[in-house]
Amino acid sequence: MAGQPRSGCAINAAVEVIGDRWSLLVLRDIMFGNRLHFRVLQEQSEEGIASKHPRRSVAAPRRGGSAYAGGCRQGRRSTYSLTEAAIELVPVMAELGRWGAHHRPTTPTLRVRAELLADGGPAMWEDFMTELRAEHLGMHVPSRSGPTATERLASAYAALAADADH
Amino acid sequence: MAGQPRSGCAINAAVEVIGDRWSLLVLRDIMFGNRLHFRVLQEQSEEGIASKHPRRSVAAPRRGGSAYAGGCRQGRRSTYSLTEAAIELVPVMAELGRWGAHHRPTTPTLRVRAELLADGGPAMWEDFMTELRAEHLGMHVPSRSGPTATERLASAYAALAADADH
Repeated sequence: MAGQPRSGCAINAAVEVIGDRWSLLVLRDIMFGNRLHFRVLQEQSEEGIASKHPRRSVAAPRRGGSAYAGGCRQGRRSTYSLTEAAIELVPVMAELGRWGAHHRPTTPTLRVRAELLADGGPAMWEDFMTELRAEHLGMHVPSRSGPTATERLASAYAALAADADH
Repeated sequence: MAGQPRSGCAINAAVEVIGDRWSLLVLRDIMFGNRLHFRVLQEQSEEGIASKHPRRSVAAPRRGGSAYAGGCRQGRRSTYSLTEAAIELVPVMAELGRWGAHHRPTTPTLRVRAELLADGGPAMWEDFMTELRAEHLGMHVPSRSGPTATERLASAYAALAADADH
């Protein structure tokens, strides 16, 4: 994790770690898009994300990946897992998405997951975080009936993405 | 407001407007600290905020202030009001503060308002936004018993700040 924050303020402390735009968008892509490879993060980026690896404190290289120790080529092949700290950014992502959908021009396909997550509120955020912990940290997910939060987000996106293609 | 976002994503749209660290900290200071003058924002900044005016879309010069039209001296004397869009960032601030207080080193005095706001949840956020609309947009606040959200935040901070001074 980065060094001592500039001040003892909790909001400042958060934005010092995640406040640069690219870091947050890379985390978004890992979180929602399941894009675990850095190469894919770059190539499929909606915003043309530059070649910038996420911070070690929020996304850790896995399966022997060596984004920080290795060279550039190795870096592009690395695979990321979200850390617990990154997973706990789900509520921040939900509130940012709610705000963006309300105050800025967006497209239905790229807005629908943010809206679904914002409207789902803390109960859905908890489900989504539990599922991300299973995917990224190998933790156990208690079985439950009905689609998971991950599935609900993915199918809402897929339905609109299919429409947009026709 | 800034031009067209780079993508139609709601999260990207939000971070394009508020994702630079200084903008968010200036909004925080206007929101929590009631620092309406740009000079005070600079001089009392915990983080040594550079001489950067907030974006017009989230903080508007008021009472004839001309931060954008005027020169540097005039700019430093300008007074800001939060816009409706900025006021609706309260839930984002609350979730950022919750995350920062949990995951980064912070100090009790500069953390207490973030914790109080996060723990207060959507009901307190609504109250605080209503009060900010009264202060910054001149809207009517329905009278109610007990301290306002603004007062609760200010007194929690004042109690710890007084301790820290002794």
